[in-house]
Amino acid sequence: MKTEAKPGDLVEVSLMKASYQGTLLESPEPGIVLLKLNSGYNIGLVKKEINEIKILKKAEREKEKGPELKKDNEKPDIAIIMTGGTISSELDSKTGAVSWLTTPEKLFRFYPEVFDKVNVIKVEVPFMMGSENLGFREWQKIARVAVKLLNNPEIKGIIITHGTDTLHYTSAALSFFLRDLHKPVVLTYSQRSTDRASSDANLNLQCAAIVATSEIAEVVLVGHASTEDNYCYALRGTKVRKLHSSRRDAFKPVNAKPIARIISNADDSRIDILGNFNKRNQHGKVILDSKFEDKIALLKFYPGQDPDILDYYRKRGYKGIVIEMLGLGHVATSESRNSWTRKIKEIQKKGMIVCAAAQTIYGRLNPMVYSTGRELTRSGIIFLEDMLAETAFVKLGWVLGKTKNKEEVKKLMLTNIAGEFNDRLEE
Amino acid sequence: MKTEAKPGDLVEVSLMKASYQGTLLESPEPGIVLLKLNSGYNIGLVKKEINEIKILKKAEREKEKGPELKKDNEKPDIAIIMTGGTISSELDSKTGAVSWLTTPEKLFRFYPEVFDKVNVIKVEVPFMMGSENLGFREWQKIARVAVKLLNNPEIKGIIITHGTDTLHYTSAALSFFLRDLHKPVVLTYSQRSTDRASSDANLNLQCAAIVATSEIAEVVLVGHASTEDNYCYALRGTKVRKLHSSRRDAFKPVNAKPIARIISNADDSRIDILGNFNKRNQHGKVILDSKFEDKIALLKFYPGQDPDILDYYRKRGYKGIVIEMLGLGHVATSESRNSWTRKIKEIQKKGMIVCAAAQTIYGRLNPMVYSTGRELTRSGIIFLEDMLAETAFVKLGWVLGKTKNKEEVKKLMLTNIAGEFNDRLEE
Repeated sequence: MKTEAKPGDLVEVSLMKASYQGTLLESPEPGIVLLKLNSGYNIGLVKKEINEIKILKKAEREKEKGPELKKDNEKPDIAIIMTGGTISSELDSKTGAVSWLTTPEKLFRFYPEVFDKVNVIKVEVPFMMGSENLGFREWQKIARVAVKLLNNPEIKGIIITHGTDTLHYTSAALSFFLRDLHKPVVLTYSQRSTDRASSDANLNLQCAAIVATSEIAEVVLVGHASTEDNYCYALRGTKVRKLHSSRRDAFKPVNAKPIARIISNADDSRIDILGNFNKRNQHGKVILDSKFEDKIALLKFYPGQDPDILDYYRKRGYKGIVIEMLGLGHVATSESRNSWTRKIKEIQKKGMIVCAAAQTIYGRLNPMVYSTGRELTRSGIIFLEDMLAETAFVKLGWVLGKTKNKEEVKKLMLTNIAGEFNDRLEE
Repeated sequence: MKTEAKPGDLVEVSLMKASYQGTLLESPEPGIVLLKLNSGYNIGLVKKEINEIKILKKAEREKEKGPELKKDNEKPDIAIIMTGGTISSELDSKTGAVSWLTTPEKLFRFYPEVFDKVNVIKVEVPFMMGSENLGFREWQKIARVAVKLLNNPEIKGIIITHGTDTLHYTSAALSFFLRDLHKPVVLTYSQRSTDRASSDANLNLQCAAIVATSEIAEVVLVGHASTEDNYCYALRGTKVRKLHSSRRDAFKPVNAKPIARIISNADDSRIDILGNFNKRNQHGKVILDSKFEDKIALLKFYPGQDPDILDYYRKRGYKGIVIEMLGLGHVATSESRNSWTRKIKEIQKKGMIVCAAAQTIYGRLNPMVYSTGRELTRSGIIFLEDMLAETAFVKLGWVLGKTKNKEEVKKLMLTNIAGEFNDRLEE
């Protein structure tokens, strides 16, 4: 069964005994033809049983032109970096296909409210990807583009739109890569696509625009603060984690308070400061510091795990590892069948850097309480206090990009560079 | 420098120019002698610099005898299984040494309030370990002892005291190992040692005793519900995770509500039911079903991770793996430098079972939303909906203990055996 029909076309599909009219959709399965009936229902038809697909009407595929953007001298100028993700994608409800929004005009058409507050004078697109595919090279690309924009005196701050899956890794990376940051760098996202009434994109972008022109000269993540569509939080880039697969308030501050609450609706548009932050410095200049050692690993310890996995990394030339340890900083000791303490000592002697972060996510490591932890401390492990495992992973790559000297690595890992440690834990 | 002095002894330590009197403590470092001065301060003295340690008074080491336990026929009879952890340990404030509480008399001395509510007619001690050292063999040992106690008609329910670090793994294991459970199995713990005023052990044990005699015939975890020392929750054993390293309310229900709230103080002692549960059945008989395949792994995906790690497990004969995936169930696709989708297909073709759980912890996987997930679904991955990764790991070992047939494994993994799935997600 061959056909010229493409997703979006109105077609008639003939089987042996019946035929269906509807809009052809992109099929999720190779052997299935998916059809949106006029009733609105989708049906899947087995390809083998189809005799013919007749095109009744070709889909209109010409590009819509967006409205023109006018610069308003009363409004502050910002820039946007688009990197992909749901917030930068346009779902064609006819075809089910996803395409990227890559121009200010397309953005304007989708999110006109953002442009009420600011002039978006530049839109940069270093790449367009789902965030599950990003790695340190993409973090470096974003950082390079960001530095150029941030050092442009016309631009008050930048918004970076990004997929949610690894957004907290990217926010940590930018927090370390952008040194002497003097303006806001605001990462934002959407959990729900723009075709859904419950989409969070619009409020998130409006709040992001408010933060991008604020005094907060830090890398922050701005998004829904609750399940209601009413306000957002600005969360420090090194103290945030995705903690829900689908909710709009998926990102939570961990071992930290939000820096600010942002309200943006028809009646009110304001930012309430809740925590400390580095202030904007109009004479500043941001420096790119994005060298990265990618032979690093992140590993979650679990009961009965064979410590041989540590040798796997060592033998492959990994320079460092962050282990998500139990409780206050524990792994299986020599009392157990699988002694992790012994193996951890071994790989450290052979030159690997071993850091510990909390598998419990919330709370602080305290290896001095139990003998297990004391034994590990003596072996030279770097216990990372209340630092998130994801942030620790990114920071370790960044630190090892500078030095392989164990003492220097330890010192840098334990220095508070970008708010990754919180001295007074807010419990 | 040799000495007969033991921790707890009152000693005089002479250096070249000074000497100190105090109680000898167990030293955290081999080269250090630790002394508690009469002022209450601890000082560390370098061994090499010590001329002599003179014993002034030997510590009293005779065993204190606990009060006698009397059986009260008005009270229900329960049993306790002790497995170690902070709740079963006694910290000697003089020596810093930890010893285990392994008899009802010792328990009574520490936690007399528990015995106001119930007769503890049996205390079983299959082993005493910190929970960082437990694995499937210990879960099996606990299950064997539990079955014997549960099938004793005199015993209304059992309490299991356990370290906190891997308590949620053990609670999941017992949830699967104890089939046709007809009585309460209550796991409890303490986060703070009994020598601390803020210890949570007493309230947790009292509430555990209330649940052990309740109608809730499930494996539940009972412990502090908030940072206040005022009430506890009973949480389903398959829907709970340690989410704070030090707080007393470290255990949180995930994708579920608590089954009950328990209050126990001088004025009030009651249980308020909050959720559904399996009811006690006095004619029932619990069945031990604890066969376990331990060639399984739990792996957290992170940005840029080399998929070669999957081959590591396959080559070593691992039968199955639970991958903590991003977002709704995503890993790096063939678009990225490190295609996980391709490698996951490969290892499945070679016979490994691959399951997916949510790295976000909260929320449900939904692989049909984005193309990445649809591609993975087609490859045969078992997406575990709202099941916790830790529960999934334990369940996979239990299921593979029964069958290696892929279709049967998939069916069992997706069957709700012990409340590990929640149909109506409470968001």
